[in-house]
Amino acid sequence: MENFTAYNPTKLHFGKNIIEKLGETTLEFGKRVLLIYGKGSVQKNGIYDKVMNQLKSVNAEVVEYSGIKSNPLVEDVSEAAQIGKLNNIDLIVAVGGGSVIDSAKIVALSIANNTDPWAIMKYKSKPETTIPLIAVLTLAATGTEMNGAAVLQNPETKEKIGYVSPLNYPKHSFLDPEFTYSVPKNYTAYGVTDLIAHALEAYFGEGEASLSDRFVEVIIKEAMEYGPLVLKDPENYEYRANIMWAATTALNGLTSYGRKNGDWGVHDIGHNISYLYDTAHGATLSIAYPAWLKLHKNRIPKKITKLGNQLFGTNSADETIKGLESFFKSIYCPIKLSDIGIEENKKQEIVNQMLKNKINGMAHEFSDDDRRKIVDLMM
Amino acid sequence: MENFTAYNPTKLHFGKNIIEKLGETTLEFGKRVLLIYGKGSVQKNGIYDKVMNQLKSVNAEVVEYSGIKSNPLVEDVSEAAQIGKLNNIDLIVAVGGGSVIDSAKIVALSIANNTDPWAIMKYKSKPETTIPLIAVLTLAATGTEMNGAAVLQNPETKEKIGYVSPLNYPKHSFLDPEFTYSVPKNYTAYGVTDLIAHALEAYFGEGEASLSDRFVEVIIKEAMEYGPLVLKDPENYEYRANIMWAATTALNGLTSYGRKNGDWGVHDIGHNISYLYDTAHGATLSIAYPAWLKLHKNRIPKKITKLGNQLFGTNSADETIKGLESFFKSIYCPIKLSDIGIEENKKQEIVNQMLKNKINGMAHEFSDDDRRKIVDLMM
Repeated sequence: MENFTAYNPTKLHFGKNIIEKLGETTLEFGKRVLLIYGKGSVQKNGIYDKVMNQLKSVNAEVVEYSGIKSNPLVEDVSEAAQIGKLNNIDLIVAVGGGSVIDSAKIVALSIANNTDPWAIMKYKSKPETTIPLIAVLTLAATGTEMNGAAVLQNPETKEKIGYVSPLNYPKHSFLDPEFTYSVPKNYTAYGVTDLIAHALEAYFGEGEASLSDRFVEVIIKEAMEYGPLVLKDPENYEYRANIMWAATTALNGLTSYGRKNGDWGVHDIGHNISYLYDTAHGATLSIAYPAWLKLHKNRIPKKITKLGNQLFGTNSADETIKGLESFFKSIYCPIKLSDIGIEENKKQEIVNQMLKNKINGMAHEFSDDDRRKIVDLMM
Repeated sequence: MENFTAYNPTKLHFGKNIIEKLGETTLEFGKRVLLIYGKGSVQKNGIYDKVMNQLKSVNAEVVEYSGIKSNPLVEDVSEAAQIGKLNNIDLIVAVGGGSVIDSAKIVALSIANNTDPWAIMKYKSKPETTIPLIAVLTLAATGTEMNGAAVLQNPETKEKIGYVSPLNYPKHSFLDPEFTYSVPKNYTAYGVTDLIAHALEAYFGEGEASLSDRFVEVIIKEAMEYGPLVLKDPENYEYRANIMWAATTALNGLTSYGRKNGDWGVHDIGHNISYLYDTAHGATLSIAYPAWLKLHKNRIPKKITKLGNQLFGTNSADETIKGLESFFKSIYCPIKLSDIGIEENKKQEIVNQMLKNKINGMAHEFSDDDRRKIVDLMM
């Protein structure tokens, strides 16, 4: 086991009607709120009104930035930061899924340090402070509600990349499983895939961490039990709650303690696919993970076999991969690029993207040959 | 799933030579340190010197209180608090296992609020502040290094009771698995039993919490895999590390999120046995848990069966109990009072203690008849 520090500063409030604590919670940080959300689904499903009622109840002065895309863009972050600066805000309330909360994390850093967002993402500026962020989660998937990670894309540099900082943890996060009732089936399934992928990125990281491995295995079991159920019965509170909590635990530190690092090669692949074709993040992962496992099945057969043994009771790396593919198919997630309409004629474009951005994992590095092979394995 | 807040303010530093960060960490809180430890084993095994070197390196002014008993007494807490007050201390560094760290938590409250320790334990005074506590753990068992609980006993009132407060979390905890190398085999085994019992108290609490149940099951699996190994090879770093981290996770919130409460009836039984016969805490639990499960096997057969199914692959409550008893025996822990020399002639004394203190669980309440029966089942 590697040395580690176990600490997570986010105070996460989970449950039915938990939003009723939002108003009083904002008072800890001030009155001037920048409210950030996406393309308007929170207005249709009533969550916007619930949040605004809370903010009004404490006489908050609210300015808004809406329109964050599901693959979030750095230009939206820049614009939101401008609005925040102009209004001298005390805190940010972000209402949405990973894209909104990730964007809000970088908006907060950009305002507090008067810095260009992309310079932050590229680790070129070193933020030393931030503006308090409160997250109201509407999609169970990325775990951003209880971690220090944020992902953005930049059309100018043709990149979609992640940035991790201890400053990024939300001060508070509010998770009401009912807020995810209206998530469409495909995005619900992508969320399940995303949480499984997060757990696996830890599992295939560097260093032996026995208990963290066990946590990965049961988080995935939970996702595999309740994922299919929630697709059949999207307004079942227990199913939504179990998936929502599993998604948080898949990337809040728990699965990583005692490891040198996670791998994150599959996410790097996925981000580049998303960048090229605006593909939903979860869909890129259910395609990339089986391919990654096929590339690595003769390199780390024991670990891949152990995973399948725990999840499916199988005894070979091939069976692990088959089991995972079957699960993704069972929740209607793609496992090949052709499943989402990306055919052979795009292959060279994808290979070029992978080579240009030198996609890589931290524990298992790619050669250029691997970068080509993995595209073949996804076709 | 019940509503919950996931938050743990302790910053836990885990690993080899992690003590080297202690000195600088104390500076966050001040220079005047009250150092609390037990009956001298930390002086024999060199841990005392390592801690003192760290404190000297930052020119801390150290006053000491030693002699905390393994079943810690409120009178020691009072004396330590007096010393702390006289010396106007800034922080406490507690070096030891659960008894030392639990005592230090109440010392801190007693000093900060100028209050009698037992009034705190009985929830008669309501502390509103505390003195920063840094824990250096030398025994993997109670989880006190990352939670808000403390247990003390009082010979005057013939009680051993627990007190829980958010003020009780250590600010920092330092866990070096090597610091547990010199723990004797019996106390190593009691620690394993203790951590299993903590996980089970959550498991048999009130409310359905699917993922928390899974976490309980794998924490116990980890304990059952590495407990016997560490007894055979007490200076194996990985084994010690795995047990140490399992003990923390068994009672740092993770196993409880989404439940209304834990049960804690078995701990209440155990504390009363410890009070009467100065029995090691872990030894009382390996005796009390099988008895508790026998008392409840027809009341909650499904949950007890589910546990055995996960741990042993069995399919009945009786087999779960047998499996647990076999495990405790395999690590040389007692499963009957007679195993620790407490025979039939003590039965009435124990029954009287249980009736007088109205031992109880929060999820599964005892009748007086249950209080008598459980003693029979432990004999």
